[in-house]
Amino acid sequence: MGILDRIDSPSDLRRLTNRELGELAGELREEIIRTVALNGGHLAANLGVVELTLALHSVLETPHDRLVWDVGHQTYAHKLLTGRRDRFHTLRRAGGISGFPRRDESPFDPFGTGHASTAISAALGMAVARDRRGEKYKVVAVVGDGALTGGMAYEALNHAGQLGTQLLVVLNDNEMSISPNVGAISRYLNRLRLDPGYRRAKTDLKELARRLPGGVRAYDLAARVKDSFKHVLLPGSLFEELGFVYFGPLDGHNLGELRDALREVLKLWQPVLLHVVTRKGKGYEPAENDPARYHGTPSFDRSTGQVKVSGDAGAPDARTYSALFADTLVELAARDPRIVAITAAMPEGTGLDRFARVYPDRFFDVGIAEGHAVTFAAGLAASGLRPVVAIYSTFLQRAYDQIIHDVCLQKLPVVLAIDRAGLVGEDGATHQGAFDLAYLRPIPNLTIAAPRDGTELVALLRTALTLDGPMAIRYPRGLATLRHRDREPGDQPAGEPAGEPGTIPVGQGEILAEGQDVGLVALGSMVEPAERAAALLAEAGITATVVNARFLKPLDARLLLQVGACVPLVVTVEEGVLAGGLGSAVLELFANHDLRVPVLRIGIPDRFIEHATQSEQREQLGLTARWIAQTVKAKLEKLSGRAAAAGAVSIPPEPVSTLNGKG
Amino acid sequence: MGILDRIDSPSDLRRLTNRELGELAGELREEIIRTVALNGGHLAANLGVVELTLALHSVLETPHDRLVWDVGHQTYAHKLLTGRRDRFHTLRRAGGISGFPRRDESPFDPFGTGHASTAISAALGMAVARDRRGEKYKVVAVVGDGALTGGMAYEALNHAGQLGTQLLVVLNDNEMSISPNVGAISRYLNRLRLDPGYRRAKTDLKELARRLPGGVRAYDLAARVKDSFKHVLLPGSLFEELGFVYFGPLDGHNLGELRDALREVLKLWQPVLLHVVTRKGKGYEPAENDPARYHGTPSFDRSTGQVKVSGDAGAPDARTYSALFADTLVELAARDPRIVAITAAMPEGTGLDRFARVYPDRFFDVGIAEGHAVTFAAGLAASGLRPVVAIYSTFLQRAYDQIIHDVCLQKLPVVLAIDRAGLVGEDGATHQGAFDLAYLRPIPNLTIAAPRDGTELVALLRTALTLDGPMAIRYPRGLATLRHRDREPGDQPAGEPAGEPGTIPVGQGEILAEGQDVGLVALGSMVEPAERAAALLAEAGITATVVNARFLKPLDARLLLQVGACVPLVVTVEEGVLAGGLGSAVLELFANHDLRVPVLRIGIPDRFIEHATQSEQREQLGLTARWIAQTVKAKLEKLSGRAAAAGAVSIPPEPVSTLNGKG
Repeated sequence: MGILDRIDSPSDLRRLTNRELGELAGELREEIIRTVALNGGHLAANLGVVELTLALHSVLETPHDRLVWDVGHQTYAHKLLTGRRDRFHTLRRAGGISGFPRRDESPFDPFGTGHASTAISAALGMAVARDRRGEKYKVVAVVGDGALTGGMAYEALNHAGQLGTQLLVVLNDNEMSISPNVGAISRYLNRLRLDPGYRRAKTDLKELARRLPGGVRAYDLAARVKDSFKHVLLPGSLFEELGFVYFGPLDGHNLGELRDALREVLKLWQPVLLHVVTRKGKGYEPAENDPARYHGTPSFDRSTGQVKVSGDAGAPDARTYSALFADTLVELAARDPRIVAITAAMPEGTGLDRFARVYPDRFFDVGIAEGHAVTFAAGLAASGLRPVVAIYSTFLQRAYDQIIHDVCLQKLPVVLAIDRAGLVGEDGATHQGAFDLAYLRPIPNLTIAAPRDGTELVALLRTALTLDGPMAIRYPRGLATLRHRDREPGDQPAGEPAGEPGTIPVGQGEILAEGQDVGLVALGSMVEPAERAAALLAEAGITATVVNARFLKPLDARLLLQVGACVPLVVTVEEGVLAGGLGSAVLELFANHDLRVPVLRIGIPDRFIEHATQSEQREQLGLTARWIAQTVKAKLEKLSGRAAAAGAVSIPPEPVSTLNGKG
Repeated sequence: MGILDRIDSPSDLRRLTNRELGELAGELREEIIRTVALNGGHLAANLGVVELTLALHSVLETPHDRLVWDVGHQTYAHKLLTGRRDRFHTLRRAGGISGFPRRDESPFDPFGTGHASTAISAALGMAVARDRRGEKYKVVAVVGDGALTGGMAYEALNHAGQLGTQLLVVLNDNEMSISPNVGAISRYLNRLRLDPGYRRAKTDLKELARRLPGGVRAYDLAARVKDSFKHVLLPGSLFEELGFVYFGPLDGHNLGELRDALREVLKLWQPVLLHVVTRKGKGYEPAENDPARYHGTPSFDRSTGQVKVSGDAGAPDARTYSALFADTLVELAARDPRIVAITAAMPEGTGLDRFARVYPDRFFDVGIAEGHAVTFAAGLAASGLRPVVAIYSTFLQRAYDQIIHDVCLQKLPVVLAIDRAGLVGEDGATHQGAFDLAYLRPIPNLTIAAPRDGTELVALLRTALTLDGPMAIRYPRGLATLRHRDREPGDQPAGEPAGEPGTIPVGQGEILAEGQDVGLVALGSMVEPAERAAALLAEAGITATVVNARFLKPLDARLLLQVGACVPLVVTVEEGVLAGGLGSAVLELFANHDLRVPVLRIGIPDRFIEHATQSEQREQLGLTARWIAQTVKAKLEKLSGRAAAAGAVSIPPEPVSTLNGKG
């Protein structure tokens, strides 16, 4: 029907006029809106870069030239143009194409991305490899203004500026990353964008490009004077100081201007930064008006823009863990003026936008800068405040050293609120919160907990804010149930162990059910499936003791040793990698106490987990009640078969009622 | 005798004249040189900041005002002036004062540091906490030019520039961090330093300070024109763009100039960057002439500057692991043009200066930028090169996300050469390489190995460069023994398993001794102590099977299961944290195979390990042959006592000769 149907690869674009490309832009938007409305995904960012994508592929010789998209969630038009049109309806679905670039998906994806601020580093590596191998391809990195708040982008600019070889960084400036952008760099870019004096300069782009020296730049007095004029005429001195030639800002929706500029700057064999201004959500009014809402969206009705509600998402008082976390923090902050909240560019995602509305002066969005966020929090804690840093599990990997070196070594009372811990669903391999339990557990002085539901999240957050040292609380993507719906978490203790006013003693687990045949030790999101697994096992005549471990560190050693001594099999269940996680901690505990009960560990295996829905992923990995029950049954059969074969008697289970249960 | 003896706290400084402070500077240098000559330590950096330290403490009201030293190894004068003179001779010794600032050591150390680029983040946290609590103290961060290559410093500058509150960043520009500095930022600072036009500006410092607006800066056309003049008259536009007021450069050894400038800039209630130029090693000629050699030095003869040789450090062909690694890489690079080497500001420390001399075009020092280093390597690998990234274990924590997200998820053939893994000695808690085994093991697709000696390092490096995916090799600080001293590692296979040309099959361990009473499974640096422990045990009539695990991932499952099935006790020994390391991996393996042999794990316990010599630390933690033997004996006695008490018979050990040994 349209032009898009005739585009099998970017080489087909190179024959089209700007006008035809403009038509194609409309078709791409249509396809993107239609697919995201059905599958969910990143809408606003993708609509913003349609023209930029067309301009890049029509001017570059991809895939010979290397095009690296920072953060990668804006590559839908890129995918539609590079041989993945037929599979585009499978976007973000199990077995379908990824929502991010993937080396194993297409030769047009030379580098996989997902986390921000990596593209310049990767592209510089490619540029250096090219030069060493005597090849001639161009390397282009497309980087958002938000990603420029990430230090890694500066590390790479600094290195690229020194090396001086061809590398084009296209700054895709949409005046926000996910949320309105922050930091001095944002103010700086704003100045570049808005100042009429600055904007005038771009009209002379071609002429200036011709006059710019291609090689080393002189820094004698005369050059400096010229530089100072350029500072007036042509902005971007920050990038210029870092060794880049700066051009812009350009209108990122003007195909002719973009293509002309790209042709010019690609002639320069040196680091160039091309500043392009785009509009998030461009071409779909609901997304233009509320781009944060359409950053990552579930499926929606495209005529109204309303999200399609499914399952219990529509329960009247259903709240996500993120929202409950933030609401609770708002409550607690009312009583404790020392509490402040920090996000690394994810106020909506972490729920902290709710906190920011109530306490704007106690809320800090530091940009896509997880490392700084954590050490900034350490500084706040060192001076008497109680900072709570909310970061997604996968992004907290960026602050690993800061957690060790700045927070835990100094035992500073920083609360790490680890959102999206465990399986995250459609974002897939780059975004799974699979590693946090394993990478945090080795760190001394750190308390690590995971709530089994919303009620426990409230209690753990309260607990964390009473400690003298650091504590991490990890909780999943999804809805948080409250055990007492008539009570608001801030009002009074709800469902916590009796005695303490709304807190939980550090290292105290709880027994939720008692049985003789197996001990199920579960953490966080896996407690509820473990309870249901116990119910399924009971139907088969197998009784289970169910332990809510609550704390990964310190473990409730006494409780776990008691359970381990009373059952013929202990099964650990966690939504985290098996290597080094809860199961390993239990094995270590039992080994330290010469308790030789068999332990079966259920968790995320040693591979990256691909995109699918969260429940599909849990099903695939055996992290559901049904699979847990089945795995336990099979293991018990194997063990009793083995015991029978060896002529031994299975360990006689003691009555679990001797346990000091709290459930 | 001198002035120093009368200085009990910085308040005593505030009564001294510039001339007296100058005398005191000489005394401080004397004390620092004398102590470092005896104890070893960071010499050059400390000699460079004597005047700066005096100026800061004499102008600030410390400890009420907060002074945060980035990287922290330049705080010897600071320690001498802040009540630690009497204990200064214990510097870096077991039980003595640390070589770095420590919150638990003095109220004058408001924030502990060790790794670079953290100070601005921490100081900004303090400044924000101050404002929230209605306090009035000043906050100052002293940051080296090297630390400005670290992205975290930019993240913090960007945030500080937005917040706009009082924060003084003193840029201590010694024209190098540890090695000559790199990157465009270095070139930029160089320009600021050397240009006579720029230098002239500083003479007008006071006047300019008076004229500068204290609050928000206007950016209308007029302001821009003024700015453009300032760009000529007063440099630092890069910092100015980030929201800082820039002053400098100043002579960092001129006390009068420094104190005057500090008094002026501390009047401004906004982010200020004061650029101070110092000379590393100032006042001690050998260190001035070769500051890299005296960055961190062992004890030396102060008259000659020669290092005092002790123990086998003087053996004619003794080489450190770092040197052997680098020499081997030079050899391998001769045969494989795809090999390139990357360091994050540690060419001497990692030995890669040797590589850089032979292959300057294949060597990349990216600055203190571990995150960028790893993703840059991923980009190189994605384009056909074979990058080897050498980073200390403790600093690799900065690149954790990049290892997961950019290297391992994409299975890119990047070699991580992890130096200083395990206990590092006198640098202490901030620098221990204790966590790498535990934090790397959960990552899919990553091969992890540790050589038992120099010969095996050579073989493992060769192996890594033949793989299709990523591999990490961790090796300790210290000397590497070669098993065949008549052979150079590059010449021919030396001591590796027969058959393969100098490589080791991935996941293949080896049996070094056979015995019936215990299986010792050791990794890397702990293999040799385990062998000697076996010899000690043999004297007591206990025979041990000794396994060199070699690979943490994948484990040699077949070999370990065979050993586990044949002995009544398995003991794992590793120079890494116990939580999640080799011992946990063995427990997981045995649990997966229902092998219920007791496992005793020896390694680094769950606390930060303080400074002492490397051998003192190993002794303290039981990581020596004698302690291993003793621990094994005690455990065997406990187990046989328990077995006897239970009336059970200990598992009859099968003859170990049935094992498919390779030793």
